[in-house]
Amino acid sequence: MLTAAEARARILAPLTPTPPETVAISAACGRVTAAPLRARLTQPPCDVSAMDGYALRAAEAVPGARLRVAGEAPAGHPWAGTLAPGEALRIFTGSVIPAGADAVLIQEEATRAGEEVTVDAAVSAGKWIRRAGQDFSAGDEILPAGRRLTPRDIGLLAAANHPWVAVHRRPRVAILATGDEIALPGEPLPAGGIVSSNSQALAALVAACGGEPVVLPIAADTRSALISAASGARGADMLVTTGGASVGDYDLVQSALGESGLVVDFWKIAMRPGKPLIYGRLHEVPLLGLPGNPVAALVCGILFLRPALALLSGLPDPDLPTARAVLGAPLAANDWRADHLRTRLVRDPAGRLVATPFARQDSGMLRGLAAADGLILRAPEAPALPAGAEVEVIRFAELGL
Amino acid sequence: MLTAAEARARILAPLTPTPPETVAISAACGRVTAAPLRARLTQPPCDVSAMDGYALRAAEAVPGARLRVAGEAPAGHPWAGTLAPGEALRIFTGSVIPAGADAVLIQEEATRAGEEVTVDAAVSAGKWIRRAGQDFSAGDEILPAGRRLTPRDIGLLAAANHPWVAVHRRPRVAILATGDEIALPGEPLPAGGIVSSNSQALAALVAACGGEPVVLPIAADTRSALISAASGARGADMLVTTGGASVGDYDLVQSALGESGLVVDFWKIAMRPGKPLIYGRLHEVPLLGLPGNPVAALVCGILFLRPALALLSGLPDPDLPTARAVLGAPLAANDWRADHLRTRLVRDPAGRLVATPFARQDSGMLRGLAAADGLILRAPEAPALPAGAEVEVIRFAELGL
Repeated sequence: MLTAAEARARILAPLTPTPPETVAISAACGRVTAAPLRARLTQPPCDVSAMDGYALRAAEAVPGARLRVAGEAPAGHPWAGTLAPGEALRIFTGSVIPAGADAVLIQEEATRAGEEVTVDAAVSAGKWIRRAGQDFSAGDEILPAGRRLTPRDIGLLAAANHPWVAVHRRPRVAILATGDEIALPGEPLPAGGIVSSNSQALAALVAACGGEPVVLPIAADTRSALISAASGARGADMLVTTGGASVGDYDLVQSALGESGLVVDFWKIAMRPGKPLIYGRLHEVPLLGLPGNPVAALVCGILFLRPALALLSGLPDPDLPTARAVLGAPLAANDWRADHLRTRLVRDPAGRLVATPFARQDSGMLRGLAAADGLILRAPEAPALPAGAEVEVIRFAELGL
Repeated sequence: MLTAAEARARILAPLTPTPPETVAISAACGRVTAAPLRARLTQPPCDVSAMDGYALRAAEAVPGARLRVAGEAPAGHPWAGTLAPGEALRIFTGSVIPAGADAVLIQEEATRAGEEVTVDAAVSAGKWIRRAGQDFSAGDEILPAGRRLTPRDIGLLAAANHPWVAVHRRPRVAILATGDEIALPGEPLPAGGIVSSNSQALAALVAACGGEPVVLPIAADTRSALISAASGARGADMLVTTGGASVGDYDLVQSALGESGLVVDFWKIAMRPGKPLIYGRLHEVPLLGLPGNPVAALVCGILFLRPALALLSGLPDPDLPTARAVLGAPLAANDWRADHLRTRLVRDPAGRLVATPFARQDSGMLRGLAAADGLILRAPEAPALPAGAEVEVIRFAELGL
């Protein structure tokens, strides 16, 4: 049986990033750049002042010197002249340094009287001047391809005069929940039925990972219903199914969709929660079949769907970030399946991350998953560990999940 | 002059969470709950099987025993009868446990032959049964007020039968950039002008923090232009201005808007980058005036606007999360202003966070801010520190910024 890491590698293997689309810079935050971005101008465009004060010749800025104020140049209103000896120009943060000046005397160190300013402190050449191109020059690569744009990047792109950005299209993920026993929230429940939570939770996960969820209608547990519902995945970058287990885990997804063109890559992995995981291709669409159990579906979504979305989105490293923590309670030895224990994560006074797994790990308990701060990763056959031992964890907050 | 912490406290003091609105569960991820949420049903609704197999009496499940298969109950199709002695019922994950049965024999430990099943391993009473209410019972509080909903929470809410959720309305933040020297990306630039980046960067920051940005047209450096543009903030939860510094930092914002009803709380703080920070109230709208310098505007946005958005959004703890790191390079002593040094943050092989500040901290450099992983917080008059010393840092990734 596959390990979770092998399964992840096989899920990622056939995927490629979505093609680019053009979006306005006002809609680009969180999107992933499809090409490197170059500055379209030089910033600052010329030497400018970093402070409010007076542009002057540093050599003349000796304490007590009095200079004639030749004029004033607010930011955006450059002074056309050339500063003569004995002159200073009233300037402000962002003002262009006039020809003839080589330093700025800040206003806190100047005394103004009418058309004259007295120097209160010496100034060295170049002081308080931002040089042309100090931030970037036209043509500089300012952001690489494959970067998820932050608000800081948006500021940089705007300053470099980009009104539009080429980004990878959001991966479209069709989500198909199956089962005679489930109904959408608020809808009439069949006898012995439960409310369907997987579609909504996975749609939220897809959106939180930068994808565009397409929630298909729930499919009843018949071949024709499943085939018909799955046809709604046309044009999606991935089809995610959950459940289909009323006649044995994944029998229905495999058998019904197999008739309809599904080519299966693998369908079981050695992990908990989530053994029945199927991966294949339905016509041109990669199909990821998750367990029907809501906790297993979400944990598998975090472990497998999130990296798939990262790759489809054009991110260079689709791996799952993990962290180290110390155990807040002892752990029993693990069996042959990799385990993913719901855990609380807190910082101790020394700043270390402490992972205290929940006593109950029932994969039927969504409440425990919602209350957890992360997952402790347990390798197959991992030995028992005492409190204080080091473990590897996934932090939900770090993943934005 | 105020410290950054005092300024943050005064910015937060007059703010209250926005009122609730009703959103569909499909639109609720990332929103903040406005009231505690209770389960509307019991989950599981009755005792159900955790596995595929056979429901039976544990006392009869001795290895070698042969039981008559009385029927089959797929999930969603409960069996109406009562199991008689010597009988078993074929069931699946999620199937209702029939009356008379008290355990589940998993199919891997059963041998089926026609209408008979042979027990291959003993089963204890209660085995593989999920009890009614094991996850939650109708009426249980499953999520508190003031919680930013994760995909896991969405799954829990759906399972508890909530098609709608009451969440705090997204805080509306009007953003007003001022300055004769600035133009929007792609628009004609005035002589000596620069492209306006603050509005776009701050709008992205507001959206990333769960707010709804309203970007007002750029205001020229005249009183009437500023007053007219600021009137666009009517109905906003906060007005954020940037710049207004062409005749001295914030003179224009203070003097022009002062005529128009601005009541100033404070307007300078002892920090870098970002000394000229103004806070007050324009009619009923809190006004946060940020520096025009793009790096200072964004750093102040992270330090002050993010906590304000957290509070307006209804989060219980609007403080900025910080972490500890060790210095990767020595630091010089600080002056009287708190500093926020752009830094790289990496994990060393021992798992410690190492902060190596950029050599150039010029507050004119957006490129450095975009490339940074975080900020090192330096208190006023902080002493010089050697490499390896501990510092407090803000991690941009942790803030989603």
